[in-house]
Amino acid sequence: MRLLRIGAAGAERPALLDPDGTTLRDLTGLVDDIDGELLADPFALDRIRAAAGAGVLPVLDAPAGVRPGPPVARIGKVVCIGLNYHDHAAEIGAEPPAEPVVFLKAADTVVGANDTVLVPRGSTKTDWEVELAVVIGRTARYLGDDDDPLAYVAGYAVAHDVSERAFQLERGGTWDKGKNCETFNPLGPWLVTSDEVPDPQALALRLWVNGELRQNGSTADQIFPVAEVVRYVSRFMTLYPGDIINTGTPAGVAIGQGDAARYLRAGDVVEAEIDGLGRQRQTLKDA
Amino acid sequence: MRLLRIGAAGAERPALLDPDGTTLRDLTGLVDDIDGELLADPFALDRIRAAAGAGVLPVLDAPAGVRPGPPVARIGKVVCIGLNYHDHAAEIGAEPPAEPVVFLKAADTVVGANDTVLVPRGSTKTDWEVELAVVIGRTARYLGDDDDPLAYVAGYAVAHDVSERAFQLERGGTWDKGKNCETFNPLGPWLVTSDEVPDPQALALRLWVNGELRQNGSTADQIFPVAEVVRYVSRFMTLYPGDIINTGTPAGVAIGQGDAARYLRAGDVVEAEIDGLGRQRQTLKDA
Repeated sequence: MRLLRIGAAGAERPALLDPDGTTLRDLTGLVDDIDGELLADPFALDRIRAAAGAGVLPVLDAPAGVRPGPPVARIGKVVCIGLNYHDHAAEIGAEPPAEPVVFLKAADTVVGANDTVLVPRGSTKTDWEVELAVVIGRTARYLGDDDDPLAYVAGYAVAHDVSERAFQLERGGTWDKGKNCETFNPLGPWLVTSDEVPDPQALALRLWVNGELRQNGSTADQIFPVAEVVRYVSRFMTLYPGDIINTGTPAGVAIGQGDAARYLRAGDVVEAEIDGLGRQRQTLKDA
Repeated sequence: MRLLRIGAAGAERPALLDPDGTTLRDLTGLVDDIDGELLADPFALDRIRAAAGAGVLPVLDAPAGVRPGPPVARIGKVVCIGLNYHDHAAEIGAEPPAEPVVFLKAADTVVGANDTVLVPRGSTKTDWEVELAVVIGRTARYLGDDDDPLAYVAGYAVAHDVSERAFQLERGGTWDKGKNCETFNPLGPWLVTSDEVPDPQALALRLWVNGELRQNGSTADQIFPVAEVVRYVSRFMTLYPGDIINTGTPAGVAIGQGDAARYLRAGDVVEAEIDGLGRQRQTLKDA
């Protein structure tokens, strides 16, 4: 199922995108919202599935171009994995890390897939990063070697892990300073439930800036695959339903392109997509 | 005012601690909860103040030793400042940073002041850090040089920024890996409103492990005072009502004591206090 939240910021309503890819179905009345509580409830998800199969969900009469909000409400935390693609590590001259590099984004950085992204004041190096986002559906705590980490995943979505490289790398301290500017985590347009993503390591990711293809990778290139990432993170912090893991970005970001680097400026348009997970489009503005 | 949330985890009720330091007043009925929404509403705070002054708040008939929960519900994010005391920077041999070191804790690490703290599985270096926590009361975004950052502060509380040093410093990546283990941020017991903390740079902080005084500092030693921290952080990320800033720890943590380091183990008892902000007491257990 492709679950989404449609409408103005703060007033989104839960919806389902039909297999035809265009018809929106209204989930209001069936569920309160799409959030960790829903994702942790297999019966609720089955109710949606059954109603969709029975053809009884009302069509959501939304105008063309209606805003998709973040497909998950009340996100707890956004855990990010750094340097998780061989090609990206290579482009910035880093050794593949021996174990996952972990940092955090605050949930308040998450916006809709097509919302405006703000270039922070004082920014000189606002960079793009298309990423596969994992949405947690069951509390994952100290997963063992025999546990199946993918059983804790409710679904997947496109994330744009916007990053200010000067804030991240040249201002002292940890990466978080360049990762938590407002609007720095467009998510969606949809959450695709994990039953429809049989192999998260076989997804192509692409990102364009002003129509020019900049990233063109595959999750097959991930150094630590999704299952390993979920298991690993669960041994350092407890993952709760509605938490997000951004699993890293492939090659092609501005910082990897040396002199050719052309960081983002107001007026730029970024588009990002992952096979089966939909497409984002953001226009940059000054904060 | 000293505001707190009393009761079992997830079922706390809002309360006020009388000036006598022992009588609890029930705020149920007057306010829904103590959270960012309340703290952003000066009229709501005035209603509490007026009711308290008029002596009309019912006594909360709580048993001795009733649990104080985190004094703020629905915390958005916990921003932390590293290396912010001259004496702490000196004890670990670090230069005072040129600008604040910023990292994040997820809000789900926050527990009550006297809740159990769990030593993570595989931990060898679980360390203590008493800190002055700042609770944000107004949205702070790109504060200017002429803005008064303290006008954005709703109040103050004691925080214990528990830290696993091996996870933080020896496992690759950023500090966040050793800062986000579950139960790693006891907060409270109270939130003291900022009108009762005229000078946040004149507060003594103390921490004991098994009755032995380990940290004995003063916020006068902060490299970046609270006002400067709030202003600085607001230029990298937007601070929302109910967000927390842990403003750093003074000298005396285990990692600063070289061979004498004695990291925390199950059964240890940590007590932490700040002048006027109350006292915490946690027993350590194995996760």
